[in-house]
Amino acid sequence: MNFRSDLALERREMFAGEIAGIESLRHDNDGISVTHVKIKDNDAAEKIGKPIGNYVTIEIKDLSLPDDEICDRAVNAVSAELKKLIKGFSDASVLVVGLGNRDITPDSIGPKAVGKLTVTRHISKATNNEFNLSLRPVSAIAPGVLGITGIETSEIVKGVIEFVKPQLIIAIDALAARNLSRLGTTLQISDTGITPGSGVGNHRRALNEETLGVPVIAIGVPMVADVLTLAMDIIQKLPKNEQEENEQRLALNIITKRGENMVVTPNDVDIISQQASDIIADAINIALYE
Amino acid sequence: MNFRSDLALERREMFAGEIAGIESLRHDNDGISVTHVKIKDNDAAEKIGKPIGNYVTIEIKDLSLPDDEICDRAVNAVSAELKKLIKGFSDASVLVVGLGNRDITPDSIGPKAVGKLTVTRHISKATNNEFNLSLRPVSAIAPGVLGITGIETSEIVKGVIEFVKPQLIIAIDALAARNLSRLGTTLQISDTGITPGSGVGNHRRALNEETLGVPVIAIGVPMVADVLTLAMDIIQKLPKNEQEENEQRLALNIITKRGENMVVTPNDVDIISQQASDIIADAINIALYE
Amino acid sequence: MNFRSDLALERREMFAGEIAGIESLRHDNDGISVTHVKIKDNDAAEKIGKPIGNYVTIEIKDLSLPDDEICDRAVNAVSAELKKLIKGFSDASVLVVGLGNRDITPDSIGPKAVGKLTVTRHISKATNNEFNLSLRPVSAIAPGVLGITGIETSEIVKGVIEFVKPQLIIAIDALAARNLSRLGTTLQISDTGITPGSGVGNHRRALNEETLGVPVIAIGVPMVADVLTLAMDIIQKLPKNEQEENEQRLALNIITKRGENMVVTPNDVDIISQQASDIIADAINIALYE
Amino acid sequence: MNFRSDLALERREMFAGEIAGIESLRHDNDGISVTHVKIKDNDAAEKIGKPIGNYVTIEIKDLSLPDDEICDRAVNAVSAELKKLIKGFSDASVLVVGLGNRDITPDSIGPKAVGKLTVTRHISKATNNEFNLSLRPVSAIAPGVLGITGIETSEIVKGVIEFVKPQLIIAIDALAARNLSRLGTTLQISDTGITPGSGVGNHRRALNEETLGVPVIAIGVPMVADVLTLAMDIIQKLPKNEQEENEQRLALNIITKRGENMVVTPNDVDIISQQASDIIADAINIALYE
Repeated sequence: MNFRSDLALERREMFAGEIAGIESLRHDNDGISVTHVKIKDNDAAEKIGKPIGNYVTIEIKDLSLPDDEICDRAVNAVSAELKKLIKGFSDASVLVVGLGNRDITPDSIGPKAVGKLTVTRHISKATNNEFNLSLRPVSAIAPGVLGITGIETSEIVKGVIEFVKPQLIIAIDALAARNLSRLGTTLQISDTGITPGSGVGNHRRALNEETLGVPVIAIGVPMVADVLTLAMDIIQKLPKNEQEENEQRLALNIITKRGENMVVTPNDVDIISQQASDIIADAINIALYE
Repeated sequence: MNFRSDLALERREMFAGEIAGIESLRHDNDGISVTHVKIKDNDAAEKIGKPIGNYVTIEIKDLSLPDDEICDRAVNAVSAELKKLIKGFSDASVLVVGLGNRDITPDSIGPKAVGKLTVTRHISKATNNEFNLSLRPVSAIAPGVLGITGIETSEIVKGVIEFVKPQLIIAIDALAARNLSRLGTTLQISDTGITPGSGVGNHRRALNEETLGVPVIAIGVPMVADVLTLAMDIIQKLPKNEQEENEQRLALNIITKRGENMVVTPNDVDIISQQASDIIADAINIALYE
Repeated sequence: MNFRSDLALERREMFAGEIAGIESLRHDNDGISVTHVKIKDNDAAEKIGKPIGNYVTIEIKDLSLPDDEICDRAVNAVSAELKKLIKGFSDASVLVVGLGNRDITPDSIGPKAVGKLTVTRHISKATNNEFNLSLRPVSAIAPGVLGITGIETSEIVKGVIEFVKPQLIIAIDALAARNLSRLGTTLQISDTGITPGSGVGNHRRALNEETLGVPVIAIGVPMVADVLTLAMDIIQKLPKNEQEENEQRLALNIITKRGENMVVTPNDVDIISQQASDIIADAINIALYE
Repeated sequence: MNFRSDLALERREMFAGEIAGIESLRHDNDGISVTHVKIKDNDAAEKIGKPIGNYVTIEIKDLSLPDDEICDRAVNAVSAELKKLIKGFSDASVLVVGLGNRDITPDSIGPKAVGKLTVTRHISKATNNEFNLSLRPVSAIAPGVLGITGIETSEIVKGVIEFVKPQLIIAIDALAARNLSRLGTTLQISDTGITPGSGVGNHRRALNEETLGVPVIAIGVPMVADVLTLAMDIIQKLPKNEQEENEQRLALNIITKRGENMVVTPNDVDIISQQASDIIADAINIALYE
């Protein structure tokens, strides 16, 4: 299972039938499909390559079509699922982290969403009293990416936590999917944090309760697919015998070496990232304040 | 030859040996490779699917590495080649057109370069005299893309031409390459204008002398590859017999249907598009004013 | 009356009592103040320095406060007033022009709004039929500014009109107000087009029916005040005798010379321009399609 | 001395003649004026309202004029002065902090400059050895502004310091000047850090050695002037007797209340902030690596 996907749903789909330790439940909610995948023990986690926890996949119609009604329903679905996951954190101080590079369109969802959030941590008690508000303290950062800052994102987040002392972190990120049809059409919420390269073993940069000492809710939209993953998909679907398989593996290596630092992304990525960040920011605002 | 490439060099590479009506000359200039491809007659043009004219390919090292020295040499190479192509147009009024969508990183080279150009058309004779200048009139537009404007780019350009009455147009655009290793490493200048989908037969939106009534120099950098082209490349490199070929073609159809509106693009596309637009703007400024 | 203001309301306020040829009516609509100023003849137009026509001023609370409810009511008010002004143009082809410089925050309302509009002119009849739509043809451009393009905005717009042939133009622009308290709190709609420097006599660059041959609805939000206008306001409010007045005039000249190419703008101009462009784009979408 | 200015030079100009504890030296360097102001003791610091330390003011011609030669000389002057101030820190680990709001053009110099810096902290020893490099570790962040993050900038910086452990900080910021003619024409470097509102007494948010435990070099360009400062300047230049003075003070209060959250900024602020951030990034790259 050496393909790249940040979606629990896609990793689950690799296996036919039931898997011990994994519950999966799909229902339709106001025209939008919501699938809950619960990974319950270490065996299951290892098997599908994602940590123990809850994964909610919300399938939205194509976000490249500007459709206000779909967006409104998506906001409702996302905020409803988010509310369930943060139920134990009413009034808790929340830090929202917008991951990714704002100068690369498919990677800009996190920073864009942060710019649209309502933050309140800096509003004084005096002001809250004056306007008869009792808003929980919410703060937000877009820490940038390693290539621009020279600093691991997790280090910046840890540093900010030392001073902000949030009780909950919500991390927003663009995700990688295996299946091209998932790009710009799906949104995943989980309570396991962000575990970059989790299938591959690089846990150093993870943003989760273990590394940060604070629970991390992750919200993401698949915006890219690996060129390598795409090439493997193509090859796997071809008819073959054993010898050919070896030759194909060789060909794959040559072809994908060039595509190593490249991704597949939709043409309408400008509209998708605009709408996805709007939906996420609106849903977080509703889940935190209403 | 049903792959997508805007590079004459890549189309030329499809054929081994000499082609009647095509001259090709490669030389090294200050550590940078420059290849001139001249398509001399209709037969040759049809054969490789690009209009009659001159195509200069400048191979730069990887633009995702921020290297001031390489950039300076690239500026020199591009401005030198550009000067040759516009030799007959000294003092001519020039309109620069930055094509593409500024909100999609790999497509933003044109609009970004336009923002860095020096324009002079609006500087009055009085001011030119006062500062003892005799700058040729240069203007520039970034017309936007059909999905945002609802107007064909060529219509906007034609409309602007009616009032600006330039004697030469320089069009800047992001290109598609077949070969992933060309993305962000190559720059093409031609005197044949922009012919979108030229290999496929859609000439409606071309920006060239025939459609605009003014000669068009095109400058572009390959920033994306087609998912379909990539998949074909993968499949073509696999060993196969005739029956398998048919099955592969079928598989290809299924796989690529989803990738129809998707592209492959480098991870460092933010740095590449920044540097490519800097190089192009600097080279045009030098070629037009020095 | 040598101050700079693009607001008919502010020019009207210079005169106490009734003015022949000017009707003014103020009413409250869903918590938002709407003032209609109608300039009916040339004498009145000359007197207050704005062309004959209808001017609707909508006073919104401070747009620097992110308040979804206020924004929704503003969208309703703006779209309602806009619908009245375009009543005779149902099904007409509309070109929206987003004026201003996208790289200067207070001047970016026009280009930002254009990016959020729904355009339809490029949707084929076939598609309209397939989805059972009968959307009027709407297109949109952000022509850029003279300093970047070297081309007068009016020339670009005229050029585009030749090919798009709209029956109505809606122009969006950032305005100048005299009164600092108007910045980011007011929106003006008029059916007289954009007449830059109308109080000063520079009609060359006007975008109106006279210059374009097509009726022009203008929508604007005051985002800046003149430093000169501000200085005059300060001086006029000071107590003085005749001799002092002369000395003050002298002082004013010295002071304002430096401020000639400068403007006053709110600190929260990022939030204001974001919200103003959202409101305008939403209101236009509603007025044109619903 | 209740006007707002972040420039030591402007505060020095308030006093005629020598001031004990302040040395001031002006010289011309390659056509660019450089003034060194040294504040040597607490009395002097209190008198002019800036901390003890070195302030270098570099007067560049108008940055709104795109002039490559002026920019190159400015880069040389800035990097030369910067090298002097960081002489004791060769090979030291440096954290560059780009202050300000990237969505407000005059405030965007810091974040823009950070995006153009070369960072090296994440480059492994292995890579350095492979390419025979011995680059000092440089990292960079643009922490955002309180209104967007809900977190004091100084808290974010302190947090990052805990993990990055730099030996020197370079902070880039847009400044306020008293004199309109300083906007976009001057650059200040100091070794005293950033002390927002230092003239007014708010030291809480200062970024300096005292608050951060690491020396802080500050680089800034005046991009705005206070409306209040402007109004006071106008009034102070008017002739008056004592009674009038009181009336003027009253008038000033009324007028400036509206302008409290507003600033004066140049019209060409897009070009100025682009060029200023280019100059600063280039100068830092040279000072740190060459």
